[in-house]
Amino acid sequence: MDSGQKQELLSVLHECMEVSNRCFDQCLQEENLEMVRNCIRLDRECADFCQYVEGAIARDTPFVEELLQACATICKACADECDQHDHDHCKRCAEVCYRCAELCEKFTAA
Amino acid sequence: MDSGQKQELLSVLHECMEVSNRCFDQCLQEENLEMVRNCIRLDRECADFCQYVEGAIARDTPFVEELLQACATICKACADECDQHDHDHCKRCAEVCYRCAELCEKFTAA
Amino acid sequence: MDSGQKQELLSVLHECMEVSNRCFDQCLQEENLEMVRNCIRLDRECADFCQYVEGAIARDTPFVEELLQACATICKACADECDQHDHDHCKRCAEVCYRCAELCEKFTAA
Amino acid sequence: MDSGQKQELLSVLHECMEVSNRCFDQCLQEENLEMVRNCIRLDRECADFCQYVEGAIARDTPFVEELLQACATICKACADECDQHDHDHCKRCAEVCYRCAELCEKFTAA
Repeated sequence: MDSGQKQELLSVLHECMEVSNRCFDQCLQEENLEMVRNCIRLDRECADFCQYVEGAIARDTPFVEELLQACATICKACADECDQHDHDHCKRCAEVCYRCAELCEKFTAA
Repeated sequence: MDSGQKQELLSVLHECMEVSNRCFDQCLQEENLEMVRNCIRLDRECADFCQYVEGAIARDTPFVEELLQACATICKACADECDQHDHDHCKRCAEVCYRCAELCEKFTAA
Repeated sequence: MDSGQKQELLSVLHECMEVSNRCFDQCLQEENLEMVRNCIRLDRECADFCQYVEGAIARDTPFVEELLQACATICKACADECDQHDHDHCKRCAEVCYRCAELCEKFTAA
Repeated sequence: MDSGQKQELLSVLHECMEVSNRCFDQCLQEENLEMVRNCIRLDRECADFCQYVEGAIARDTPFVEELLQACATICKACADECDQHDHDHCKRCAEVCYRCAELCEKFTAA
C-alpha cells in the first residue's frame, strides 16, 4: 500500500465509522424501533471495527491483511442490512459501507 | 455543538489520531530510541484516546463534556513532549495535538 | 494505586464492560424495545468506555485521574438508567455499574 | 460457543490484554530499548486487539469467526517476538499470548 492508497483507505474508514455511528444514533430515535433492531446491532459492529482499523492502519500495523479481511466482511454485513431500509441514514450508511468493503477487499487482494 | 462544529471536531480528532499514530510508528524506527521513550508512550495514549472520542462524538454521546476535557489534557501532554524533539514527525504531531487540545477546550467551555 | 488496588480496579472494569455489553445484547432482543431505548445507548457508552479504561490502566497510563473521573460519570449514568428496569440483565448491569463507579471515584479521590 | 466456553475465552482475552499492556509498559522502561523495539510494537497490536475482541465477544458479535482468526494471528506474532527475550514480563507475555492464540484457534475451528 503506497501513501496515497493509505490516505484513501483511512479516509473511507473514517467516513464509514462516522456514518455507521450516525445511523446507530438515528436508528435509536426512530419511532419504529422494531424495524431497525438489526441495524442498531450491525451499525455498532461496523462503527467500532472501522474505528479500530483506522488506528491500526495509521500506525502501519503489520496485520493489514487480517484486519482488512475482517473489516470487509463486517462492512458488507452492515451494508446489506441498512440497504433494506428507506431511512436516509440507512441508505447513506449502506452506500458508504459498500464502498469501504470494496476498498478493504481491493487492498487485501493486492 | 452544531453540525458544522461537530464536523470540525471530528476532522481534527481524526487528524490527531493519525499523526500521533504515525509519530508512534516512526519513533519506533528512530536510531536513538532513548530520546523518544516518552514520545512513544504519549503518542499511544493520545492516538488511542482521540480514536475513542472520534467514535463517541460521531454517535452523539451524552458525555461530550467529560470526554473532551480528558482529551484536551491528553493531547496537550503529548504535544508538550513531542514539541521537545526535532524530528519532523514529532513537530507535526505537536502542532496537530495543540490544535486538537484547543478545540476540545473550546467546545467544553461552550 | 498499589498493585492490589490495580487488580481490583481491572477486575471490576472488566466485569462492568462484560455486563453492560451483555445488557446491550439482551436489550436488543427484548420484545418491548421502546422501553429499553436509553439502556441500549447507555450500555454501549459504558461498555466501550470501561473497555478503553481497562487497557489504559493495564499499561499504567499517566492519565488515571482524567479517565477514572469520566468513567465514574458514565457508569453512574448507565446504572441510573438500567436500575429503572426489571429485566434481570438490567438489574445486574445497574449493580455492577454502581460498584464500578464507586471504585473509580474512590481511586480518583486518592 | 456455550456460556462456559465464552467465559473461558473472555477470561484469557482479558489476561492477554493485561499482560501485553504490562509488557509494553515495562519494555518502555528497559535500559536496552533497542532489544525490545519489536516487542513494544507487537505488545500494542496484541493488547489493543484483545481488548477489542473482549468487548465484541461479550456482546455476542455475529463476527466471532473473523475476529478470532485475526486475534490468533496477532497473539501468535506477539508471542513469537516476546519469547525471544529473557525479561520476566516478556516470558509471561509470550506464555499467555500462546494460550490465547490456541484458544482462539480452537473456537474458530469449532
